[in-house]
Amino acid sequence: MRTNYCGAINTHYLDEIITLYGWVHRRRDHGGVIFIDLRDREGLVQVVCDPDNIETFQLAEKVRNEYVLKVTGKVRRRPEGTVNTALYSGEIEVLVVNMEILNASLTPPFLMDDDHISEFVRLEHRYLDLRRPVMQSNLRLRHKVTMAVRVFLDQQGFFDIETPILTKSTPEGARDYLVPSRVNANHFFALPQSPQLFKQLLMVSGFDRYYQIARCFRDEDLRADRQPEFTQIDIETSFLSEAEIMSLMEEMIRSLFKTVSNVELPDPFPRLTYAEAMHKYGSDKPDLRVTLELTELTDIMKEVPFKVFREAAEKSNGRVAALLVPNGGRLTRKEIDDYTQFVGIYGAKGLAYIKINKLGDGQTGLQSPILKFLPEDIIQIILERTGAKDGDLIFFGADKAKIVNEALGALRIKIGHQHGHAESGWRPAWVIDFPMFEWDEEDNRWQALHHPFTSPADGHEDLLQNKPGEALSKAYDMVLNGSEIGGGSVRIHRNEVQSKVFQALGISEEDAKEKFSFLLEALQYGAPPHGGIAFGLDRIVTLMTGSESIRDVIAFPKTQRAQCLLTHAPDTVDEKQLKELNIRLRKTEQPKN
Amino acid sequence: MRTNYCGAINTHYLDEIITLYGWVHRRRDHGGVIFIDLRDREGLVQVVCDPDNIETFQLAEKVRNEYVLKVTGKVRRRPEGTVNTALYSGEIEVLVVNMEILNASLTPPFLMDDDHISEFVRLEHRYLDLRRPVMQSNLRLRHKVTMAVRVFLDQQGFFDIETPILTKSTPEGARDYLVPSRVNANHFFALPQSPQLFKQLLMVSGFDRYYQIARCFRDEDLRADRQPEFTQIDIETSFLSEAEIMSLMEEMIRSLFKTVSNVELPDPFPRLTYAEAMHKYGSDKPDLRVTLELTELTDIMKEVPFKVFREAAEKSNGRVAALLVPNGGRLTRKEIDDYTQFVGIYGAKGLAYIKINKLGDGQTGLQSPILKFLPEDIIQIILERTGAKDGDLIFFGADKAKIVNEALGALRIKIGHQHGHAESGWRPAWVIDFPMFEWDEEDNRWQALHHPFTSPADGHEDLLQNKPGEALSKAYDMVLNGSEIGGGSVRIHRNEVQSKVFQALGISEEDAKEKFSFLLEALQYGAPPHGGIAFGLDRIVTLMTGSESIRDVIAFPKTQRAQCLLTHAPDTVDEKQLKELNIRLRKTEQPKN
Repeated sequence: MRTNYCGAINTHYLDEIITLYGWVHRRRDHGGVIFIDLRDREGLVQVVCDPDNIETFQLAEKVRNEYVLKVTGKVRRRPEGTVNTALYSGEIEVLVVNMEILNASLTPPFLMDDDHISEFVRLEHRYLDLRRPVMQSNLRLRHKVTMAVRVFLDQQGFFDIETPILTKSTPEGARDYLVPSRVNANHFFALPQSPQLFKQLLMVSGFDRYYQIARCFRDEDLRADRQPEFTQIDIETSFLSEAEIMSLMEEMIRSLFKTVSNVELPDPFPRLTYAEAMHKYGSDKPDLRVTLELTELTDIMKEVPFKVFREAAEKSNGRVAALLVPNGGRLTRKEIDDYTQFVGIYGAKGLAYIKINKLGDGQTGLQSPILKFLPEDIIQIILERTGAKDGDLIFFGADKAKIVNEALGALRIKIGHQHGHAESGWRPAWVIDFPMFEWDEEDNRWQALHHPFTSPADGHEDLLQNKPGEALSKAYDMVLNGSEIGGGSVRIHRNEVQSKVFQALGISEEDAKEKFSFLLEALQYGAPPHGGIAFGLDRIVTLMTGSESIRDVIAFPKTQRAQCLLTHAPDTVDEKQLKELNIRLRKTEQPKN
Repeated sequence: MRTNYCGAINTHYLDEIITLYGWVHRRRDHGGVIFIDLRDREGLVQVVCDPDNIETFQLAEKVRNEYVLKVTGKVRRRPEGTVNTALYSGEIEVLVVNMEILNASLTPPFLMDDDHISEFVRLEHRYLDLRRPVMQSNLRLRHKVTMAVRVFLDQQGFFDIETPILTKSTPEGARDYLVPSRVNANHFFALPQSPQLFKQLLMVSGFDRYYQIARCFRDEDLRADRQPEFTQIDIETSFLSEAEIMSLMEEMIRSLFKTVSNVELPDPFPRLTYAEAMHKYGSDKPDLRVTLELTELTDIMKEVPFKVFREAAEKSNGRVAALLVPNGGRLTRKEIDDYTQFVGIYGAKGLAYIKINKLGDGQTGLQSPILKFLPEDIIQIILERTGAKDGDLIFFGADKAKIVNEALGALRIKIGHQHGHAESGWRPAWVIDFPMFEWDEEDNRWQALHHPFTSPADGHEDLLQNKPGEALSKAYDMVLNGSEIGGGSVRIHRNEVQSKVFQALGISEEDAKEKFSFLLEALQYGAPPHGGIAFGLDRIVTLMTGSESIRDVIAFPKTQRAQCLLTHAPDTVDEKQLKELNIRLRKTEQPKN
């Protein structure tokens, strides 16, 4: 019955009789004629109700915002001077021949072209919020992304294989969502944090190339922009090296950007080692749009009088680094104070700086409260290494390396975007050569930097026992504009290597068997060399749509308190249901909700 | 590094040097030469290790079943008389130049070409079971099916939109799986039984065409071939009539069968009303391959002396029907006894029959214990209506219609397939004109035959209150070879109609608001006319692969006790986890597990 979408009509259809379905976006009475902007998912079209057509005119008088109409009419050119160039259909309008009101609407709590609605109201009335063109466009792009991924992977011989949602704890380290089993009293399923173990088993089964756009679950204390459930493009292959997997995966992302957004990403993506990334950007997910870089100073600070720098440089896990801000001399006292407060978030105890007021003709003209603590030759080296010029400013970080990296890494991005030291566009990269382990100061033991199934780099197996901190892995992360959009690794496919890694992690054979018995067993029955990656779909779509939050690219998201304001999930349940599940509520001193 | 898949080499590659990765399917020593059948997901190829190549020969001697090999070798024609026509690669073999053992394997608990392994062992070692060619082929076909569906729907303008897994109870009637919320103590998420409400909301949002290959969950007492989680091809559209939706959906299924299995399904699919299906086949999911049909006899049995028939015919919900079995006169006493027992499963108290021994020349020659209770004219009508001929047999059902339909319906299929009254191939059909409600004898109230959001047929709105039993709906089921593979309806889009349906179902306004407030609210803000369907993916793939169980088309299924024998989910959890969730176990008198 529908001949066209509202938003898809142009002068090509002049004089045709068309039938449209849509929502009343706006109604205007003007000179005795009623104009309706009719909206569907493709956009708006102007519909004109002439008083000569008494029946439809009387109907049109009843029509209010968000009424649902069926309209049959004739496409005609808009009168001179009323063309709307912002609209695809802006040169034409539809003169109504026949109209039907398919449904009425209460006055909606907000207008569909209002972009300043509180998120609370939006989420409460999500079905209306999703009518807004920006949300329509976000979810359409998300569809296009998943379809492009599926087409690419299908063509490359990947099979889409579903893995269970009701399953057992996976070893991702976050908290599991649990599901009590009724049939098996006192036993619980866990919702998967990722299909990691299953996809490895599928490689053991010989499927060779697997993918799944998989729902994953983490019961975390929700930080900004996390969701209890999120979606992963989950991929695993057999018999490919790191380089081959990375090459295939960046081809996928290139194809995706090209298909969906007509963007050409570089070929190949630049590759950075983890060490390089930390040294130059203080981050393993550097925003390469920002042109600023950190400068290493630890080596020259070991004997300076300035205690803050010296002590940081002397520590085995300490670091002293500089961030040169070209033209940073113009920063005000207030701005520098704000940045000092900002790095405090990351644990930095201060933010030393040197302003270069005038340089050249032998004069340094430096300005800084810390100058007096730094020998002249050290200052010269700082100026040389950073390449500082007249008008620049140098910030310093000196502390545990972790704090310096986080603080200066974040400051680099903030200043870069605020003060024009950032390019536009898309800057993807691979970060490689990750360490196998990182030291957990709280628990006083090594932790897997990725997960315990990550293969050590060739020749690094022997380091696992003696120098675990030096062992590198076959892990790789894909970063894009400062976000980690994907991460993966070649996995361990030999049982004896897996045992060594468990040992290094202080996981007893018993514990490993208890937790991963089926994987360890599978490794003994002809497991092929294999590896893979998982991309964060929500994050990719958030970046591609330029959204502020992943909540804007998820149809029905939850709040930071893990609640759905639309359906009011989670909700209380009947005692009968709890009884069937053989559980009861504990007494809470104060109900939290 | 790999140049070819094992199973994809033929004489086209003669004399080429190729590199393969695969598993040792079999190793044979023959005349001083070692032959290895190397297997990957594409199939087998014969690899030959000549003793002249000492290094590889010594390796080949170590090789056992399911070892993982990398093999480089030269493709050559097999010697005369050793060609294996059953194999795609059967005309060639690969003479090994270089070989590497990538991983060893313990002796597997079964051989990969054994088709008689107990399901328990298969599920325990699922990663090995999935290596078997039949399982590889099943999951590959499943991938192709989902891809064909996605391509079709994408081309038709459907958007793939994800709906939540952590959500609120849906009104499908089965038991929900619950997930305790840690952040919101004493509150629970429910896993969705279907995305029904969300897809309706997406229509209210104006997405116009939605689909999702969606995981759904039902905590049922598991009957044969159900799974706690299953997969649905979930579809919803706006502004289409029943006929338009059905036409689009059968086009999808036709395209699917054509793309994946090169099968041409009829265009259009036959349409049967619910009443017709029950009368002719005793089932709303008739197996149309079976050529037998039921014959209505209720009308002529109201005054016969035979009490069993008369009483059934007199009941308002009773039925007397016949099933003619051509050449059924040859059925033995034993066979008839077995069938009598079989219909007993469905509640039938007996299975009356008449054998037609000789017909024509005025003589009936009928043989039956019930002849004496049936007047001659009635017998004549029976013979005429069933069209019985010499050598045929007529079975009778007389009871509540529900029992007669189930018993004779099942008998029809059993006899049809056992005695050659069934065609081969694919017989899809639509069943339409379902009643809105069916009477629930236990609860003494009307129940929705589909779900409470199903629209009444045009003109049947007024029946909702006065004659709910006569109201038909805009529901439609797609059936294929005796299985319901899809079901859907045009939904109610007007609030006042929804209220009437809730009233008819005895759902108070308060209850409705409590359960579906957001849907009812959404219907007031310009809900478009909309409808959709959901297909059971597992069942479709089971049919297409000719599998006996849906467990054979799911990578990691659960047993009938809802357990995963591979991972041992569900499992016990730490007290700490329960405490975080603010729940505790009830004391069980006897641990069930």
